Amino acid sequence: MTKVIDFQTEPSSYRHWRVEYDGPIANLFMDVDENGGLFDGYQLKLNSYDLGVDIELADVVQRMRFEHPEVKVVVMQSGKDKVFCAGANIRMLGGAAHSHKVNFCKFTNETRNTFEAAEKDSGQKYIAAVKGACAGGGYELALACNHIMLTDDSTSSVALPEVPLLAVLPGTGGLTRVTDKRKVRRDLADVFCSTEEGVKGKRALAWRLVDEVVANSKFDEAVQERARAFAADMPKPEAAQGITLDPLDKTIGADGSVTYSLVEVLVDRDARKATLTINGPDAEAPDTIAAFEAQGDQAYMLRLARELDDAILHLRLNEMELGLLVFRTQGDPARVQAHEALLLEHREHWLANEVLQYWKRVLKRIDVTSRSMSALVEHGSCYTGVLAELLWAVDRTYMMEDEFEGDNRPTAAITLTDANFGPFPMSSDLTRLETRFLDDAEALSAAESQKLNALEAEDADSLGLVTMILDDIDWEDEIRIFEEERASFSPDAMTGMEANLRFAGPETMETRIFGRLTAWQNWIFNRPNAVGPDGALQRYGTGLRGDYNMERV
Amino acid sequence: MTKVIDFQTEPSSYRHWRVEYDGPIANLFMDVDENGGLFDGYQLKLNSYDLGVDIELADVVQRMRFEHPEVKVVVMQSGKDKVFCAGANIRMLGGAAHSHKVNFCKFTNETRNTFEAAEKDSGQKYIAAVKGACAGGGYELALACNHIMLTDDSTSSVALPEVPLLAVLPGTGGLTRVTDKRKVRRDLADVFCSTEEGVKGKRALAWRLVDEVVANSKFDEAVQERARAFAADMPKPEAAQGITLDPLDKTIGADGSVTYSLVEVLVDRDARKATLTINGPDAEAPDTIAAFEAQGDQAYMLRLARELDDAILHLRLNEMELGLLVFRTQGDPARVQAHEALLLEHREHWLANEVLQYWKRVLKRIDVTSRSMSALVEHGSCYTGVLAELLWAVDRTYMMEDEFEGDNRPTAAITLTDANFGPFPMSSDLTRLETRFLDDAEALSAAESQKLNALEAEDADSLGLVTMILDDIDWEDEIRIFEEERASFSPDAMTGMEANLRFAGPETMETRIFGRLTAWQNWIFNRPNAVGPDGALQRYGTGLRGDYNMERV
Repeated sequence: MTKVIDFQTEPSSYRHWRVEYDGPIANLFMDVDENGGLFDGYQLKLNSYDLGVDIELADVVQRMRFEHPEVKVVVMQSGKDKVFCAGANIRMLGGAAHSHKVNFCKFTNETRNTFEAAEKDSGQKYIAAVKGACAGGGYELALACNHIMLTDDSTSSVALPEVPLLAVLPGTGGLTRVTDKRKVRRDLADVFCSTEEGVKGKRALAWRLVDEVVANSKFDEAVQERARAFAADMPKPEAAQGITLDPLDKTIGADGSVTYSLVEVLVDRDARKATLTINGPDAEAPDTIAAFEAQGDQAYMLRLARELDDAILHLRLNEMELGLLVFRTQGDPARVQAHEALLLEHREHWLANEVLQYWKRVLKRIDVTSRSMSALVEHGSCYTGVLAELLWAVDRTYMMEDEFEGDNRPTAAITLTDANFGPFPMSSDLTRLETRFLDDAEALSAAESQKLNALEAEDADSLGLVTMILDDIDWEDEIRIFEEERASFSPDAMTGMEANLRFAGPETMETRIFGRLTAWQNWIFNRPNAVGPDGALQRYGTGLRGDYNMERV
Repeated sequence: MTKVIDFQTEPSSYRHWRVEYDGPIANLFMDVDENGGLFDGYQLKLNSYDLGVDIELADVVQRMRFEHPEVKVVVMQSGKDKVFCAGANIRMLGGAAHSHKVNFCKFTNETRNTFEAAEKDSGQKYIAAVKGACAGGGYELALACNHIMLTDDSTSSVALPEVPLLAVLPGTGGLTRVTDKRKVRRDLADVFCSTEEGVKGKRALAWRLVDEVVANSKFDEAVQERARAFAADMPKPEAAQGITLDPLDKTIGADGSVTYSLVEVLVDRDARKATLTINGPDAEAPDTIAAFEAQGDQAYMLRLARELDDAILHLRLNEMELGLLVFRTQGDPARVQAHEALLLEHREHWLANEVLQYWKRVLKRIDVTSRSMSALVEHGSCYTGVLAELLWAVDRTYMMEDEFEGDNRPTAAITLTDANFGPFPMSSDLTRLETRFLDDAEALSAAESQKLNALEAEDADSLGLVTMILDDIDWEDEIRIFEEERASFSPDAMTGMEANLRFAGPETMETRIFGRLTAWQNWIFNRPNAVGPDGALQRYGTGLRGDYNMERV
């Protein structure tokens, strides 16, 4: 699996999904092209999916919000007879490298979290209309919807057969959503998750696995009726016309560097490092929200979010040996603030809201990226507001102190804004500063009291906003030592350490999915019982069960 | 590592610890016998530890509470010069099977949680008095204390060198306690956890890694002074004389069965199953708390807790291929209630409190046991109060309904008591019934309204207290099918599934240690970078670093 995976797509290229727009209701059909796998060696039978299918779904979900703000209810359904979705493709999983499996699951989790949150964040409610078999990742798709309807016939059921059938977990949030979202009683959850054939009809309803069970003959009508009723109840303001998300301006160089309009990714393979430079606005902020809307996908804040998001995904899946991501910014902080302020001031405006919500997701994606990350606050940088969030999303932040010889850029400073105190919570529901100053209200309010002041190194350091401030003499050496050290450590130990240190404090369903559930799944994805030559994933389809070492760990 | 590990010990057998009692203060010295390893092949240099050392520590902590209720402050310190504790022994870890490593870590975690909670639960506060190197598991010992004092000299430091040195995590709570208990800022935590040599003196204090730094010349005096001050402030009632914990009445049969005075463990190797039968009280409850105290360690509630605890530990470490633990009870429920009621009524009494706290720990130990577990509610059983907690600690509960041919025992019933609504929280701080009925106050209060009523099958089922009720016709078949099914699944998938389904709802530092942190450590304990022939654990001490695959997962 060495081909470059492209996370950009658009509706005319879809092979697996289609959407029929009907005013406030969008009917979303999953109709996977068996021969449309991202890689060779497997067929995507029975609406099973691989990363390529999920990249399209992520695109659907994203465009639904930006291009179709009129939509209030999305009905996720199958375009095939007798099967809703069979889950992740097993042959694909069986053939994939551990790192691909793990990153595939992370991306699918992010997409599910995104459409699950769409009701609250964007007033778009997802209904899963389940006809036919809905198993494993298929049921996990439904679990992430806000309402599950199941038809009551002899072949329609919901199931999580991973444990009995494949010796792995329902790892795309399945176990967590069963207990924490649907609040299925734990012993019934145990029965459900070890029953290959799943649960049907009234029992599925009684166990809380679905929200409604409807006779087959009335199902389609009941679904549309439910969709209309939800749409009528949705308190979403009537939206204007959506905007169009055109293809990104993106070039990949021969050395692996990636250049977007605002983001540059430089690759240093010897140092196993990618440096992401974010450039400040290339134009003044629009004067009005109407002017902002007229800029469409070229508005600075949206364009930057899209480019940064794509860069992170590209590095995650295509550059697995680059263990360190270094963030830099360069630009005019006042301009960044002006662009951001317009959005914060008009948070009720649909597009301003969507762009802010999107930044929330991009920052969360960075939080859960399994790479060591650092930020450099250099002279000429523009870490303010939403861009300053990067300073606390990363593992360490180094800041320039005093003058550097021959460097005429404006002195390095950090400027906090309202953006740092609420609109971009982490998956734990704390802001990054709340996490940083866990239970330390004094430190937090000291930082907040400095809002809109340009904080140079000493002030930023004494407020606890950066890890280390360094002058001209120490800057290069200290950073080089850190980067070399990081490159020498075991990547696995880094991943485990970062997954624990980054998320102090309370847990939510989302953190539990990325923390507890994912970690157990990763463990299982390393165990011979699942992935060995006689393990369940390899033997799937042969008629033989996995040959298990029965020792309990 | 096939010898039977015995979790029972007593002070005259200790090889690694000694305690000097001084009124309300106990000075606890770690002085590990290099040649006293539990297994061959390694020396326990520099106060490093293996499971045998930790079994003694667990015994110290337990006896401190039962035999020395007069103690209010425990000072954990080193009996060696220049080293506090070097952590888990690396050669032992390098040579141990994955299953031993994981279960070793679980037990050490439980012991640390126990002495950490001793302040709140039993009015015994632990001080770590750190002189010399305090690294890895050594610093994790200190982290679990309630107060850390560090001497200020050139050789004394605290460190978590696991990541840079060994490519594994500080997995005995280290990462979690650094962020969640000590609230070390996450970027400083990142620096700390990747700095092999650790942090000394004032910086350790400034980073919150320790609570006090004291000049070397004044250290011993300052520690004792602090201990006396804490003791004076401890709101603990003046305790009576402690009781003695005599050796358990325990026989291991040739077939692996274990017989205690109240607990029997039957082993069925073909079915990979152990059946634990708990017998009800063999005598009436004492009339008064004084009479209870006079019974010492022979009091039913204490004797049973000790036997059950030992049985669980025995099965965990010595019987790793028994994947299913089946709980049974037989006895007079009214008697169980009477024994329990005396303790609940006298919760303020030191010994009643200790026995209740111990039950809390035993039940938590069951919660985190990586085996499938079921409970059978048969005729003649005595699932009431604390014993009924077992019904919701396990994964599934089967209950007999109506008469069974030839069975004259009293009809199966479950009786809830006050014990089911508060005194025995899980590690999530919810009771087992609150977890079972997550956010369903109605179901919870319906159960509570039936307190002290003997609930036969239909009632227990409609209240949601059991998984399945079965009559004479179905009982054997249904249970056999479940047990066979369970024995056929991948043990790893079971472990992962159970670790997720058992802990719905909120997380605490404790659940994060057993869930998130442990799962990542288990993953790393399977990765070649740590445990492969060229991994860091094997290469430790050779002067060579691990040879790492640098791909990020």
